[in-house]
Amino acid sequence: MTTMLKSPLVLGDQGSFFFGGQVTKSADGDTLHTDAAFARFQAPPDPAWPPIVMWHGGRQFGKTYETTPDGREGYQQIWVRRGHPVYVIDQARRGGASQASLPTARPGPTADALVFNLFRLGIWEPPAEPTFFPNVSFPLDQASLDQFWFQSPTVLLHEERNNEDRDFHAAKMGQLLDRIGPSIMLTHSHSGAYGWTSAMHRPEKVRAIVSYEPNVYAFPADAVPADTPIDNPLALGFSPLQVVSPERFETLTRMPIQIIFGDNIQRSTPNKDIGSQHWHLSSRRAEQFAEAVNCRGGRVEILHLPDRGVRGNTHFPFADLNNLAVADLLSEFLAEHGLGAPASR
Amino acid sequence: MTTMLKSPLVLGDQGSFFFGGQVTKSADGDTLHTDAAFARFQAPPDPAWPPIVMWHGGRQFGKTYETTPDGREGYQQIWVRRGHPVYVIDQARRGGASQASLPTARPGPTADALVFNLFRLGIWEPPAEPTFFPNVSFPLDQASLDQFWFQSPTVLLHEERNNEDRDFHAAKMGQLLDRIGPSIMLTHSHSGAYGWTSAMHRPEKVRAIVSYEPNVYAFPADAVPADTPIDNPLALGFSPLQVVSPERFETLTRMPIQIIFGDNIQRSTPNKDIGSQHWHLSSRRAEQFAEAVNCRGGRVEILHLPDRGVRGNTHFPFADLNNLAVADLLSEFLAEHGLGAPASR
Repeated sequence: MTTMLKSPLVLGDQGSFFFGGQVTKSADGDTLHTDAAFARFQAPPDPAWPPIVMWHGGRQFGKTYETTPDGREGYQQIWVRRGHPVYVIDQARRGGASQASLPTARPGPTADALVFNLFRLGIWEPPAEPTFFPNVSFPLDQASLDQFWFQSPTVLLHEERNNEDRDFHAAKMGQLLDRIGPSIMLTHSHSGAYGWTSAMHRPEKVRAIVSYEPNVYAFPADAVPADTPIDNPLALGFSPLQVVSPERFETLTRMPIQIIFGDNIQRSTPNKDIGSQHWHLSSRRAEQFAEAVNCRGGRVEILHLPDRGVRGNTHFPFADLNNLAVADLLSEFLAEHGLGAPASR
Repeated sequence: MTTMLKSPLVLGDQGSFFFGGQVTKSADGDTLHTDAAFARFQAPPDPAWPPIVMWHGGRQFGKTYETTPDGREGYQQIWVRRGHPVYVIDQARRGGASQASLPTARPGPTADALVFNLFRLGIWEPPAEPTFFPNVSFPLDQASLDQFWFQSPTVLLHEERNNEDRDFHAAKMGQLLDRIGPSIMLTHSHSGAYGWTSAMHRPEKVRAIVSYEPNVYAFPADAVPADTPIDNPLALGFSPLQVVSPERFETLTRMPIQIIFGDNIQRSTPNKDIGSQHWHLSSRRAEQFAEAVNCRGGRVEILHLPDRGVRGNTHFPFADLNNLAVADLLSEFLAEHGLGAPASR
C-alpha cells in the first residue's frame, strides 16, 4: 500500500531546520521563540546545479511538492533526481513552522467546493455533484481527491495581500538564501508575490524565478498598468497590484523569470466559474508584468502549457498526472539559462 | 552551511500521505475535509525489519525525530540506516496535519522557560539566566538552543489528557497500521498514552512499543494503583491515570514494551524544579504500569539510561548529543525480540 519509488533515490544530503524566527523577551526575563519558517532539504551526492527553493501557495504547505495525491513522485523528488539540492519550505505560521506570534483567533476550515473550483479541477456548484474538466490531468478516483483536499493544513489567518506581509516573509527567505547561497526560486500561486519580493530583497541570491500561476504581480509605482476588467468582482479581488518603488522593481530585470499557466483558463466562461475567471485575469496581469520587466531590460517569459501540447493541467501542474512533462519544460528553461540539465527522460 | 550527511543515504522508498481524516457534508451539499493526520516515510531498499512509526510528543511535531537542533542525524535517518522503514507522523491538528475541525480560538504561544525546565535541559528561573545541567548531553551553543525552541509549532489546543482524545488519535493510527502493516510503535512523552491506546485498538498490528519518557500510563479499572505522592501539585497534574477496562488492558501483554528515561531525574530536588519532579513521578508511574502489565503475563521493561552509563539525557534522548548510543540500546532491545539488527557501529 505504500508508494513505491520507481527506482532507488541516493541522497548526499538531507535534513531540516528553522529560519527567520524572532525572539522576544518578556518583562519577567522569559523569552519567546516564534514565527520561524521551516525548511526540509534533500540533495543528490555532488549536486551539479543550483538549489531550488520550493515555496507553497495559499491554503497549502510544503506537502504541495511531495508525493502527489495519487502517490506518484512530486516535484521535490523529481528535482533531486535531476541533480538539484531541493529546499521545500513551510512559510512562517503554516504547517511545520514554529509557533505563531499571532492573536489566538483563526479562521475556520475551508470547504471543498471553493478549492475544487478555484484550483481548476473542474466545476462544482453544490448541491450538484462535482464535475471534472473533460481533459483534466488529475486522478479521478475518490481516494486521490480526498488526499488533495486533506492537503490544506490549518490556516492561522487568511492569505494577506499587502506589502507588509510580503516583506515579512521575504525577510525570512533572505535569511534562508544567505545560508544556502544563490538559488532558483520556485513559487506557486499566493507565494508568487513572495517570490518577487524575496528577489527584490536579495537579487544577488536569486538565480531565476519560476512561478506556477502566481496571482499577484509587482509593478513600479511610476508605471502601474490600467486595470484589467473582468466580470466577476470576486476574481478581481484575488489579483491586486503589488506596487513597489521603481528602484526595487528594477532588480527583477537581473534574473530570468518564467511564469507558467495550466489549462482550462478560458477567455469567456460563465461568470460563476471563478477558477477560470480568476486565472484568466492572472494571466492578463502576467502579460502586463512581463512587459513592465522586459521593457526595462529583463527576461520574463510566459508559458501556457497547452501551447506546448501539455494539456489538462490544474492550478497544480507540478503535481498533475503529467508532471514529468511539466518538469521537462522547466528543464528546458533552466538548461537555456545554464541552471540545469536538459531533460533526458 | 547545510547539514551534511556523514555518508550517502540510499532510499528504496519515500513519500507522504494523509490518514484518518473525516469528511462532513453541509446542508448545501458542499463537503469539508478535516482532521487527517500526516505521515512522511522513508525506507531502505529491501527493508529487513518491520516499520517504525514515530509519534512526537506534546508541543512538538514530526520534526522531533528529524535533524537534531545542532544539525546531526535524528532518529528518522538513524533508523532508516538500520534497516527499517520509518514513518514519522504529525498527529491530527498539528504541524502538517490537515485543517482542524476545532473551534477557531487557540492558545497563545508557549514561552521558553517552561520548555527549558520541563524538558530537562536544566533550570531556568527568570530573570536569572538559564543554567544547563552540568552533565547535559545537549549542545550548549545559542543557535542550537534557538532551533530547539523554534521546534514547537502552533498548538491548536492544549494537550488533552482524557480517553476521548486518546481514542480520537488512536483510531487514526489504526488506519495507518492497517495500511502499512504490523509496526514498532515509538512514542514520546504525551504520545505515550496514544501509543498504549493505539496498541489496545490494534494489538495485532503493534509488534512492540518503545516509549521515551511517557507521562501517562494505562491501568485496568480493577487495579488502579494508589497515588504517587509528590510535593509539586503541578507535576502531579501532568501524569493522570489512564483507566481502561481490564479486557482492553490485557492486550498490552501481547507485545514487548520498553520505557526509557534520561538523566537528571533526581528523587529529591527543590520543589520548583518542575522538570525533575515531574519525570520522577512519571518514572514511579512507569514502575506501577510495568507491574500491572507483567503480573498479567506481559513484558514491560524500564530502562534508565544512566544505569547503562549513558548520561546527561534530556527529555529528548533520541535527539541528544549521544543519540547514537541511545539508539544502540534500542537496537539491543529490538534484536532481543527479533525485530531489528544488533547495533554494529
